[in-house]
Amino acid sequence: MANLRQASLRHANLALVARTVLGADVPPSRADVAAVTSLTRSTVSRLVDDLVAGGVLEEVASVVGGPGRPGRPGTPLRASTGRFAALGLQIGVGHLAARLVDLSGAVLAERLVTTDLAGSRPAPTLRRLRSHAARVLAAAPDGCRVIGAGLALPGIVDATSGRLLSAPNLGWEDVDPGPALAEPLGDLPLQVGNEADLAAHAFASPAPGRHREPSDFVYLSGEVGIGGAVVVGGAVMTGRHGWAGEIGHVCVDPDGPACRCGSTGCLEQYAGRLAMLSAAGLDAGTTSAELARRAHEGDEQACAAVRSAARALGIALSGVVNVLDIPTVVLGGHLAQVGDLLAPEVDALLGRRVLSAHWVSPTVVVASDDPAPGATGAALLALQKVVTEPVRLTDA
Amino acid sequence: MANLRQASLRHANLALVARTVLGADVPPSRADVAAVTSLTRSTVSRLVDDLVAGGVLEEVASVVGGPGRPGRPGTPLRASTGRFAALGLQIGVGHLAARLVDLSGAVLAERLVTTDLAGSRPAPTLRRLRSHAARVLAAAPDGCRVIGAGLALPGIVDATSGRLLSAPNLGWEDVDPGPALAEPLGDLPLQVGNEADLAAHAFASPAPGRHREPSDFVYLSGEVGIGGAVVVGGAVMTGRHGWAGEIGHVCVDPDGPACRCGSTGCLEQYAGRLAMLSAAGLDAGTTSAELARRAHEGDEQACAAVRSAARALGIALSGVVNVLDIPTVVLGGHLAQVGDLLAPEVDALLGRRVLSAHWVSPTVVVASDDPAPGATGAALLALQKVVTEPVRLTDA
Repeated sequence: MANLRQASLRHANLALVARTVLGADVPPSRADVAAVTSLTRSTVSRLVDDLVAGGVLEEVASVVGGPGRPGRPGTPLRASTGRFAALGLQIGVGHLAARLVDLSGAVLAERLVTTDLAGSRPAPTLRRLRSHAARVLAAAPDGCRVIGAGLALPGIVDATSGRLLSAPNLGWEDVDPGPALAEPLGDLPLQVGNEADLAAHAFASPAPGRHREPSDFVYLSGEVGIGGAVVVGGAVMTGRHGWAGEIGHVCVDPDGPACRCGSTGCLEQYAGRLAMLSAAGLDAGTTSAELARRAHEGDEQACAAVRSAARALGIALSGVVNVLDIPTVVLGGHLAQVGDLLAPEVDALLGRRVLSAHWVSPTVVVASDDPAPGATGAALLALQKVVTEPVRLTDA
Repeated sequence: MANLRQASLRHANLALVARTVLGADVPPSRADVAAVTSLTRSTVSRLVDDLVAGGVLEEVASVVGGPGRPGRPGTPLRASTGRFAALGLQIGVGHLAARLVDLSGAVLAERLVTTDLAGSRPAPTLRRLRSHAARVLAAAPDGCRVIGAGLALPGIVDATSGRLLSAPNLGWEDVDPGPALAEPLGDLPLQVGNEADLAAHAFASPAPGRHREPSDFVYLSGEVGIGGAVVVGGAVMTGRHGWAGEIGHVCVDPDGPACRCGSTGCLEQYAGRLAMLSAAGLDAGTTSAELARRAHEGDEQACAAVRSAARALGIALSGVVNVLDIPTVVLGGHLAQVGDLLAPEVDALLGRRVLSAHWVSPTVVVASDDPAPGATGAALLALQKVVTEPVRLTDA
């Protein structure tokens, strides 16, 4: 009993120290960690030694004239680079991605392929992803331990079984991706999730234990369609079945165009990538960067496409903010590539249509234009166990 | 230290026993409570005795041939009736309400006045409410202790200061209702909240400690306008500033009629009471019951008004369900009075417009047609402290 209690205390303290270092904005010293956690300096030092030996933390190399000397109370600590990593995979309608991400949030290896997967068949697509996954895993640096994998999919996922129930823009129904990926993954656990939820997780927590402010926001993930997620207190809201966040299917105009989902006038029929390209008179292969270039140059059709998308985003998002009282909106994916064009008009519409805007102005934030943030989010989620159960990793 | 620890243990155990009895579907005996809580029978018996003596619990009178005898392990226990109560107040656009509600959820005394408060002045209205509050408090039964008060308002409330920031349908801006109600309340703490949030609380928890299934739902409170609330795990979602749930201002049609909030095509412009009466060709004084009667009799304009409201509800609510993945919708207030007419069409639209409806069908539930559920919710919220800190009440 005494040993069990001691083990569980050590587990809790290791997790506390790991969270404290990983979550710090500036690399803290052992003394800083002791001050924050209220553990004694000697306890902290012992735990830090274990986390450094186990590869979770590393000491920042001392600079000339700096205070740091390895193992000393004053040496700054940070997440180790290249020691623990997870594999993030993503199937988008326009790309396949495989990424190896480490504890610092750095990408150690990556394969990112632009490809048109609308109407694709699941089996050959999963075979292509498998080969990317294998190559990225093979590129892991020496001494790097891969501890998990995640797959981001553009549709409704059953979190329990890991099956994709439906991805209308891929044309996929009821697909189980696990078996096709079993070979390169071996014993690695694979967690399957919705791409917008995972991209939102990466935005909320750009490295395990690290949190961005504000920790409440509405995230839109633009691709061919539009996915979304709602983040409250840094955590992605799941809803009853894990299907929350389908902002792309909020109705903007009931008399609007038919959507693949069976409804009419859905947001993605105005602000999805294909809808914007078509409104701009461009073919489906055109990049969003090209659309943005044309709009910046004043091309009339491109500008009209941007205006129509911004109006639809303003209408749909004002409803979301009215319902949730979360006045921060993040534009990700292809919406980020045209984000500077969209943001002013979306901002103005939120100001006019959100009931509480008089007291708190809604804000529009443009994310990075990474086309596969869901892959990063899938890897980061798999790395979370370093913060929640470091003892299993350091004692292994 | 030892005494402090014992006191805090007693506090936690009293709360646990109170919650267990109040939350039970069937009145449990002392032995049942011991089995559920894992406390010893003698500890439970002592705590129950204190809660009975303190007026929180009562023993169900034994019936002829029944097993119960006061103080015996087998005697069923329940929330006491008429011993602890709270005052719930509500200012609606069409009514004033004051209610005294006890621990069992029963209304001990009530004043409910139908009146038109659109464009009213705050000071005389609050004076009227004060006199209703005083009369209801005076009507409290002998031996009844009033432990708190709450006020439900149809607008945006600053929870910290208790000020009403804006109620467009009353025409009120920045009103502090506290001072006007100070006299009858005396030392009673007053908590001010949004009426839809409080009505949703009453629906989720019809008595302190008691919870309804499902514990996740979207609640609409129809009056002149439409308020709303989102309930997750039995708790009303507040959002960043306590302003979540403004479903009445979700846009149904951007080209629709102007709303008092400054936007266009808001849900309440189609499904609010005034909007429905006007669409039915009836004057603003007509009751929703009369509108329902006409629609049931096949009156063409009344039927068209119902259809238009149902369509707007279907569009707005499908967006909410798509974003939240909470597939249960409760129609309250005036919407409950026309609920049987609205529900089939709203159901059908949710089935068509909610992305996940193929796997989980959304459900529409019609609440009771109580015109002032916010008053009940305000009282119930004030009574919560019986469950969270019974020691203060039983030891007083």
